[in-house]
Amino acid sequence: MRMYDLIEKKKLGQELTTEEIRFMIDGFTDGSIPDYQMSAMTMAICFQGMSKRETVDLTLAMRDSGDVLDLSKISGIKVDKHSTGGVGDKTSLALTPIVAALGVPVAKMSGRGLGHTGGTIDKLECFPGFSTEISEETFIRNVNEIGIAIAGQTANLAPADKKLYALRDVTATVDQMALIASSIMSKKLASGSDAIVLDVKTGNGAFMKKYEDSVALAEAMVSIGTMAGKKTAAVITDMDQPLGFAVGNSLEVIEAIETLQGKGPKDFKQVVFALGSVMLEFAGRAKNREEAVSLMQSVIDNGAALKKLAEFVTAQGGDASYVYDTSLFPKASFSQGIVAEKDGYVHRILAEEVGIACMTLGGGRETKESKIDLSVGIVLQKKNTDAVKKGEVLAVIYGNDKEKMTAAAEKVLRAYEISSEIIEKQPVVREYIFE
Amino acid sequence: MRMYDLIEKKKLGQELTTEEIRFMIDGFTDGSIPDYQMSAMTMAICFQGMSKRETVDLTLAMRDSGDVLDLSKISGIKVDKHSTGGVGDKTSLALTPIVAALGVPVAKMSGRGLGHTGGTIDKLECFPGFSTEISEETFIRNVNEIGIAIAGQTANLAPADKKLYALRDVTATVDQMALIASSIMSKKLASGSDAIVLDVKTGNGAFMKKYEDSVALAEAMVSIGTMAGKKTAAVITDMDQPLGFAVGNSLEVIEAIETLQGKGPKDFKQVVFALGSVMLEFAGRAKNREEAVSLMQSVIDNGAALKKLAEFVTAQGGDASYVYDTSLFPKASFSQGIVAEKDGYVHRILAEEVGIACMTLGGGRETKESKIDLSVGIVLQKKNTDAVKKGEVLAVIYGNDKEKMTAAAEKVLRAYEISSEIIEKQPVVREYIFE
Repeated sequence: MRMYDLIEKKKLGQELTTEEIRFMIDGFTDGSIPDYQMSAMTMAICFQGMSKRETVDLTLAMRDSGDVLDLSKISGIKVDKHSTGGVGDKTSLALTPIVAALGVPVAKMSGRGLGHTGGTIDKLECFPGFSTEISEETFIRNVNEIGIAIAGQTANLAPADKKLYALRDVTATVDQMALIASSIMSKKLASGSDAIVLDVKTGNGAFMKKYEDSVALAEAMVSIGTMAGKKTAAVITDMDQPLGFAVGNSLEVIEAIETLQGKGPKDFKQVVFALGSVMLEFAGRAKNREEAVSLMQSVIDNGAALKKLAEFVTAQGGDASYVYDTSLFPKASFSQGIVAEKDGYVHRILAEEVGIACMTLGGGRETKESKIDLSVGIVLQKKNTDAVKKGEVLAVIYGNDKEKMTAAAEKVLRAYEISSEIIEKQPVVREYIFE
Repeated sequence: MRMYDLIEKKKLGQELTTEEIRFMIDGFTDGSIPDYQMSAMTMAICFQGMSKRETVDLTLAMRDSGDVLDLSKISGIKVDKHSTGGVGDKTSLALTPIVAALGVPVAKMSGRGLGHTGGTIDKLECFPGFSTEISEETFIRNVNEIGIAIAGQTANLAPADKKLYALRDVTATVDQMALIASSIMSKKLASGSDAIVLDVKTGNGAFMKKYEDSVALAEAMVSIGTMAGKKTAAVITDMDQPLGFAVGNSLEVIEAIETLQGKGPKDFKQVVFALGSVMLEFAGRAKNREEAVSLMQSVIDNGAALKKLAEFVTAQGGDASYVYDTSLFPKASFSQGIVAEKDGYVHRILAEEVGIACMTLGGGRETKESKIDLSVGIVLQKKNTDAVKKGEVLAVIYGNDKEKMTAAAEKVLRAYEISSEIIEKQPVVREYIFE
C-alpha cells in the first residue's frame, strides 16, 4: 500500500477503505508517512469530504493510536460530556456536581483554555490547592468514593489526532466537518466512558457559526459515537452571545456556584439542565427528560449539588471553604462600566470579541505558555433582546491594569450590537440530536 | 505575509497576487516555507486552478529562483524547442541540424530519458565519444562557429521547479495544467533563448492523453511564453502510436540520419517540418511556413543537413563516421518478429506499452541510476490504419537477452489493437497554437 495512491484516490473523490485509513494513520503516527503527504491528503479531504464510514474509520484509527482508558473499575454507567467551546462556558463546573449528586459517576478528562475560550482546568484552579494532576489510582478511587473526578489529559490519548491537528492548524485544513468530528470523537472514545453527551455551540462565538454547520457537526459526531458502540447525543446550544453573565475564571466559578445555590443565570441553567437530562437518561437514572429536570432541581434545592462540589474540590486538594464563601476568591483591583452610546435593543453580543477582551485583560492564554490572571474578566449587564438607554451600563470590566482595561473596554463596546428594533429571542437550547 | 493565509486564500478559490506567489516560491526555495505547507497549496491548486496571470507569475518566480542564462554572445535569433515527451520521439536529432544548416543558431539544453520516454542526450551518446558535458565557453563558441550545440542541464536552472516537481511527484499533484505549464516554461525561460517552439504530444502515449487537455496545455504555455516577452508557439502532434518506426536509442538515431538522407518515415518528417517551419519563421529565416518547408527540403536534398549533423557530432567529441555509415552502430545480438494473431486493421498502438517494452529490453531507465543498452529496441512494421493478415509481422524486437525479449514481445503484441474495421487516419500534425 502506498500513501501516494491513497492521496490520488481521495483527490479523485473515491472512498478510502478501512484498511487504507488505518495504514495512513498508523504510518502518520509512526512517522513513516511524512507530513507533506498527509497535508496533501487533508487538503484533498477538504474538497472531497469523507463518507460516514470513512469518518468512523478515521476516528477509530486515531483512537487506537495511543492509550484507550479502561474505566471498568468504576461501577455504574460513566457518561462523558464535551463542549465544542464557547465564551462564558462554565457548564462543567455546575453540571458535574449535579449529576454526581444524583449518583451518576463523573470520570472526566479536561483541558486548559487557549485563545478566546476558557478551559475547565483553569477555572477549577481558582480553588487554592486544587490539582488535576492526579494519579490514575486516585482518579478511580475518587470517582468510586465521591462520584466525581476531573483530570488533565496526561495519558497518551489519540496521539495521531494531536499530530494531525497540529498539521491541519498550519495548512488551513482545520475547518472540515469530518476532520473536526473525528478529532473530537477520537479523544472522547479513548477516554473510556460508556456514553457521550456533546454540547455543540452555534452562533458568532462558536467554532461553527452557521446553524446548519453546527447541526451537521453534531450529527457527524453522534453518528461516529453510535457506530463505535457508545450511546451518544448532542445538544445544540446558543453562542450568539456569551453564556450567562460572567466571563473570566473566578467570575465564572462564582456564577457556577450561584447556579448550584439556585440563583444562576437562566440561560446558563437551561444549558446545564439540557445536557444533564440526557446524561441522566443515558445513565439510566431518569426515565425521561422531565424526570431528569425535576431530579436536578431537587439536588439544587436541597444543597446536595453544592455539597458535592465541595467534596470534589476537597478530594483534589482544593480549599472547599471558597464554595461556601465566594468572597474569598481574589478580586481584581479595578472595575469599569461600559455604557451604551445610544438607545435601542441588544441585537447580539459578539462572544469572540468578549472572549478576546478577557484575554487582553490577562484572563486567557495567547500561547500555551501564557500565565493567566484568575481574577479578571467581564460581567455582562445586558444580554440579547434587552432594551438599553444611552448612558446605561452594558457590562462591567474587572482588571488589574488600566491600560489593558481600556483596550478590553473598546472590544466589549464593539461586541455589543445595538439596533433600533427588538429581535426575536432565540432559545438557548436549540435542538437535541440523537441517532 | 504568512503562507497559511495564502493556502487559505487559494482553498477558497481566490487569486494570489504577484507578491504572494513570489513570497511563496522564494520561501519554498530557501526552505523557510516547509514542504507540508507547499503540498497543501498544490493540492488546493489542483481543485481551484490558477488564473493566467497567476500561472505567469508562478513561472517567472520559478525562473528567477536560479540562473537565467545569457545567450547574448550568440549572434542571431535563438529558437528553443521543447517536447512534452513521447515514444520514438527522435525529433531534435533531425530537426536541429536542418535548422542549423539554414543558418538559425541552435543553443539547446537537453535531458536524459526516464521511464518509457527516451532522452536526446542518451541518443546522442550513441556516437562514440560524444559528450554533452561541455563548458559554457565551448557551448557558445560551437553555436557561433558551426551553428549548433546541445548541452546537458548542468546549470542551476529553476531550482524551485525541481524542488516543487519532486514534491508534486509524491503527493499526487502532478496532473494540474497550470503547474505543468509553469514547470516546463520556467526552465525554458531560464534557458535564455529568444523564442520557443513547443511540441505538445497528444494521445495514448502522451502525458496529455485527451486532445482538449493537450490544447489547453499548449495554450497555457504559449500564453506564458508570450506574456514573458518571448515569441512562443506550440504544435500539437499525434502520440496515439510511436513516432516513426524505430523505438530504442541507436535505432532512433539511424532513423533520424535516414530522414536527413531523405528516406525517413513520413509521419516523423511531418513533425520535424512542422516544428522547423515555426522555428524558421520565428528566426526570420522564412517568410511563411511554405517557404520554410521548401528550405528544409533543400538542405535534405543537397546533403547540408546531414553534413551539419556530422559537424555537430565532431564538435562535441563524437565519431562522425557513424553519420555516414550507420552499420557502425552497435547491433543487438538477437531479433524476433511479433506476428498478428488475426486479420484486421491496426486501430492504435499503445505507445506507452511500446516504450515500456523498450525499457524492459534494457533500452530505457527505470531509475535515474540505470545504465542503458543503446543497441536494443523495437522497429514497427505496421502502423495505425495499416491492414494486417494473421501471421504477418507487426514489429521486430532487437535485444541481447532472450528472457527480456519474451517479456517485451508480450508487451508489444498487447500494444497493437487490431480491429475488423479500418479507422479514419489522423494527421500526425494536428494543430498550430499561436497567441
